[in-house]
Amino acid sequence: MMYSTQMEAARNHVITKEMKICAREEQISPEELREQIARGIAVIPANPNHKGLIPHAIGRKLKTKINVNLGVSRDCKDYDVEMQKVMRAVDMGAEAIMDLSSHGNTQPFRQKLCRECPAMIGTVPIYDSVIHYQRDLGELSARDFIDVIRLHAEDGVDFVTLHCGITKKTIEEVRAGKRKMNLVSRGGSLIFAWMSMTGEENPFYEYYDEIVEICREHDVTISLGDACRPGCLADATDQTQIGELLRLGELTERAWARDVQVMVEGPGHVPLDQIAANMKVQETICHGAPFYVLGPLVTDVAPGYDHITAAIGGAVAAMNGAAFLCYVTPAEHLALPDVEDVHQGIIASKIAAHAADIAKGLPGARDWDDRMADARRALDWEGQYAEAIDPLHAKAIRESRAPEDDHSDTCSMCGKFCAVRSINKALAGEMIDIL
Amino acid sequence: MMYSTQMEAARNHVITKEMKICAREEQISPEELREQIARGIAVIPANPNHKGLIPHAIGRKLKTKINVNLGVSRDCKDYDVEMQKVMRAVDMGAEAIMDLSSHGNTQPFRQKLCRECPAMIGTVPIYDSVIHYQRDLGELSARDFIDVIRLHAEDGVDFVTLHCGITKKTIEEVRAGKRKMNLVSRGGSLIFAWMSMTGEENPFYEYYDEIVEICREHDVTISLGDACRPGCLADATDQTQIGELLRLGELTERAWARDVQVMVEGPGHVPLDQIAANMKVQETICHGAPFYVLGPLVTDVAPGYDHITAAIGGAVAAMNGAAFLCYVTPAEHLALPDVEDVHQGIIASKIAAHAADIAKGLPGARDWDDRMADARRALDWEGQYAEAIDPLHAKAIRESRAPEDDHSDTCSMCGKFCAVRSINKALAGEMIDIL
Repeated sequence: MMYSTQMEAARNHVITKEMKICAREEQISPEELREQIARGIAVIPANPNHKGLIPHAIGRKLKTKINVNLGVSRDCKDYDVEMQKVMRAVDMGAEAIMDLSSHGNTQPFRQKLCRECPAMIGTVPIYDSVIHYQRDLGELSARDFIDVIRLHAEDGVDFVTLHCGITKKTIEEVRAGKRKMNLVSRGGSLIFAWMSMTGEENPFYEYYDEIVEICREHDVTISLGDACRPGCLADATDQTQIGELLRLGELTERAWARDVQVMVEGPGHVPLDQIAANMKVQETICHGAPFYVLGPLVTDVAPGYDHITAAIGGAVAAMNGAAFLCYVTPAEHLALPDVEDVHQGIIASKIAAHAADIAKGLPGARDWDDRMADARRALDWEGQYAEAIDPLHAKAIRESRAPEDDHSDTCSMCGKFCAVRSINKALAGEMIDIL
Repeated sequence: MMYSTQMEAARNHVITKEMKICAREEQISPEELREQIARGIAVIPANPNHKGLIPHAIGRKLKTKINVNLGVSRDCKDYDVEMQKVMRAVDMGAEAIMDLSSHGNTQPFRQKLCRECPAMIGTVPIYDSVIHYQRDLGELSARDFIDVIRLHAEDGVDFVTLHCGITKKTIEEVRAGKRKMNLVSRGGSLIFAWMSMTGEENPFYEYYDEIVEICREHDVTISLGDACRPGCLADATDQTQIGELLRLGELTERAWARDVQVMVEGPGHVPLDQIAANMKVQETICHGAPFYVLGPLVTDVAPGYDHITAAIGGAVAAMNGAAFLCYVTPAEHLALPDVEDVHQGIIASKIAAHAADIAKGLPGARDWDDRMADARRALDWEGQYAEAIDPLHAKAIRESRAPEDDHSDTCSMCGKFCAVRSINKALAGEMIDIL
């Protein structure tokens, strides 16, 4: 049959080639995945115009996926450097790249990504609107924003973040000073500013049905942006955040009515004890649509180490239902990430995702850990490097401070006091020499 | 009244000067803390021979404390370098230092620590036994081990890790091949090896009452070591681990019967979904005695990044009741940590501890985050550095990639797209210039 979207196919009991590829990755049957996509609890963002795509499915019952934000900006303008970062991120295991370019000639880079990059490509069209038209925000019309969404869809983008849930009511709440950090969503702040300047309603809310039709035509997955995500612990899970979530729940249903795939974006800065509740509320309000979270960061006080605060929150979020983690780098809140920051951010996100997959008991998730444990018990260092999440880094640390020759089977952490060595010797009936 | 231990004082309704100091840190009343110490759910490790101590209380209802392992070894022999690491760790906020020295002349360093270091000092006497007597493990007697505990108590050590829970039954279980990683506790492996070589029962178990009397005399807190902590996810929460925990629960009661303070040590490598259960089981079996955890690491596959895997596990453990986190550095499983590793390990542990304290709703815990949020909203960069967990690091990142002059109130992450800047301008009724 002909179908517009993966969801339409799934609802008509058609198993697409993308479903087959993704089901294999998940170690589940294509039929099981098809059923999840039909219900909306999983999505496969796969724009047919993205020719080089290797598809992945995103859903609460599937392996946790990670997204890496890249793109040129005024302070980092080199498209070739950015393309290198993209390909390195993909090599490291990022399933999605969001192109957040906000400077220069954005379309050729976006088109190049959709030709050459096998990861899912996401964008935030409102960032590009100002750049595309080269007019400042207040001079853009609602129509201009919609046209940029169509442009991105035609270019082959797999998913778009649209901040549809912020309305005039939100503006009033923020103006009333209900929040410590107001809005910290970049896209949300642009809409807030545009609405403040024009006095009009949010075009992404007002023209939502038209946007849905564009996304249906190109099978672009809508990622409903959370303009009101908390930007500090004090604002977490407040009326403004949950009020927006209610609107996102309604918008999810309206997209599903047209077989358009939907993800919902989430916080943000959230105290550790509120994360499970956030995941549960999103699941009920948005009927199980995949939750895509930025962080959550479990404290506000660690700029320079927010890949760690996000790994804590992300692992707990994913264990409790979040399907998709946006990476956070050590440069968050401070600067544009450099290549090393990107590396650190990806590793931390992958650790969080893998820890959650183990906790969810996904098929095969713990096999990797078991192989590492086997190598550790055997004091097989080459085997340990091979199984390490970052083999070169692990090897470099051990070899930079190697133990003395007479206990070279160990490492300098314990030397001859190595517990594994002592137990292996004891089990073999050998004498234990410690001195 | 005269009292031997903080617990004896507490049970006799005496509020000691240490309790007053600690209660102030916790923002609770001295009476409330005294009651917790009397019940055993909090401890103040404070050996009267540790003259320079600034005491801290450890307990599940109190702020989460962190420990830093240091000490010279065969591969890192310089006592002066190690003392510098100690003082830096204390400056960074470590409440305890464990001296794990396993080389050279250990006593003068230990005595120096107890004279000069204000943090709680812990040791693992069995490590020192081999070194102290300069005889190999198989040539030591049960009496030798006991005498080293007394030596450490006299030197002023505040808490000692004793692996009292491993018995001949454990040896049988390990020999039967029930575990993937056998034992990974250094002290536990030494006892295992000694028992294998001599055929005798664990002296720390067999002479426990005598040890309790030594600890009573010097108010040394017993930290009941977990020789059987899981060394990989596959071994987590297994019969061997929980079997040992049951013995530790009994030993806790026997120490409490003599007013000796007790902590219980815990895992190790634990899948994220098993952490809360581990904390709860320890609480019931050990009657709420403070839980001191190493990690837990939520995956085995990230050598080089185990400060992150431990921060995830530690935050969740502390939120669920763990009172005391042993830091883990990026060098774990690979090498002796260097100064930078120690720094990274402390920061990660402090993030985990603080995230948990917020989650537990402890008095004042979130004030720090609120101050940071206030500085962020105002785009007050000096204020943000001042509140950062590592001010110099945060400042260095932003300044290494500063934004262009015309938007110098932001950072290069977003430049003129900065959400905080846009919202501030919109709220002030100013035009938003993005281009």
